[in-house]
Amino acid sequence: MISRGTFVTIEGIDGSGKSTQARLLAEKLGMHDIPVVRTREPGGSPCGEAIRQILKGKHHRDISRHTEILLFTAARRDHIEKVIRPALDSGAVVVCDRFLDSTRVYQGREHRTIIDRLHERFIGLNPDLTFVLDLADSLATERRRHRIEDDWRLKIVRATTHDASGLFRDIARQDPERCRLVDASQTKSRVSELLLSETLKMLS
Amino acid sequence: MISRGTFVTIEGIDGSGKSTQARLLAEKLGMHDIPVVRTREPGGSPCGEAIRQILKGKHHRDISRHTEILLFTAARRDHIEKVIRPALDSGAVVVCDRFLDSTRVYQGREHRTIIDRLHERFIGLNPDLTFVLDLADSLATERRRHRIEDDWRLKIVRATTHDASGLFRDIARQDPERCRLVDASQTKSRVSELLLSETLKMLS
Repeated sequence: MISRGTFVTIEGIDGSGKSTQARLLAEKLGMHDIPVVRTREPGGSPCGEAIRQILKGKHHRDISRHTEILLFTAARRDHIEKVIRPALDSGAVVVCDRFLDSTRVYQGREHRTIIDRLHERFIGLNPDLTFVLDLADSLATERRRHRIEDDWRLKIVRATTHDASGLFRDIARQDPERCRLVDASQTKSRVSELLLSETLKMLS
Repeated sequence: MISRGTFVTIEGIDGSGKSTQARLLAEKLGMHDIPVVRTREPGGSPCGEAIRQILKGKHHRDISRHTEILLFTAARRDHIEKVIRPALDSGAVVVCDRFLDSTRVYQGREHRTIIDRLHERFIGLNPDLTFVLDLADSLATERRRHRIEDDWRLKIVRATTHDASGLFRDIARQDPERCRLVDASQTKSRVSELLLSETLKMLS
C-alpha cells in the first residue's frame, strides 16, 4: 500500500540527541507549512504507552528477550494502526523517535531473524528515510550523566555496553538507500540543518 | 525438551466452569499427594498479569486482533518461562485455566496460521492433556448472568456470539489424542470426578 506521506525515523544510542532532533525537525518542517506528526517508540499510542510502562517497569526487570520482542512488536503494531498509518494516509510527514532499528540493536543480534520476520508479518511498513545519529559511546555516556536515571535508562545503558553505536553504524551501512549516518558530535543546530535539508530533498 | 511433569489445560467458553474445575482438580490431585501448580491465562506471572490489564482495560477496547495476538503470545511466553516450565521441570502437574486453544477460538479463525506459527516459534510447549468443557451458548449465558459484568467479560461475550463453543468442539475433535470433550451441563462434582480420573489415568 502506497502512502501519500513520508515516514522519517531517527535512530541512535541514548544520549545521541534523537528526541531533540525529532522535535527540531518537526518544528522546522512546520515552519515550511508541511503537515507533520511527531511520535516516539515504544509508545506513541495509548496501548503502546501502556506496553512501554511494562517494558520500563521496575517489576519486570527479568523479562526475557523473546517476551520483549513480542511486546515491542505489539506496541509497534498499535502505533502503526492508530497513529503512523493514518498520518501518512493524510499526507503528513511522520517523524518517529526510534523504530525497528532500535529493536534490532537492543533486542536483536542473535534474534535478528525473528525480529525481521515479525516485522514483515505484523508491521509491514518501513521508513522512507532514517537518520542514524552516530556518537561515540563515551560521549553519549557523558551527555546522559545530566539526566535523571531510571530503570529504563539503566536498561538502555546496559545495552550500549554491547557496542550499540557500532551496531547502528552497521545498519546504516547495510541500507544506504534508506539511512543517513549523521555525525552527532556536531552542534545541535548543525545536525538539525542537515536533517532538515535531507528531509526536504526527499520531499521534493 | 521432555519435562518430568504433566501439563493439563482446561478450555471452553466463559461460563462453562473452567475456573471452578481447575480449582477442584488441583485440590483433588493435592489430596492424592501429587504436586500441583494451578495457574491461568492471560496472566499467571507478574508480566503476564500486567499484559492482562492492558487486554481487559477500558482504555484499550479498540486493540486490533493482530495486536491482541502479539500480547497474548508475550504473556504466554513469560508465563511459560516463569511459572509453567519450572513447575513441569520440578515434576509437578500444571493445571492451567485457558491456554492456546482460547487464543485460537477468540483471536483466531482467520488468523489461525499466524497464531500457530507464533506458538511454534515463541512457546513451543503443548499440553499433555486438554479438557474442553462443552456447554451450549444459551446455558453459559444463563450462568454468566450471575457474575459481575466488566469489559473483559463483555469482550468474551461478544466473541461467544460467533459460536465459540462450536469452535472449541472442532478443536477437541481435530486433536483427540490431547483433548477430552466434557459435557459441562452435568453436575459440578460429576465433571470434577471425570477430570480427576482422566488426569490420574494420564499420570499412571
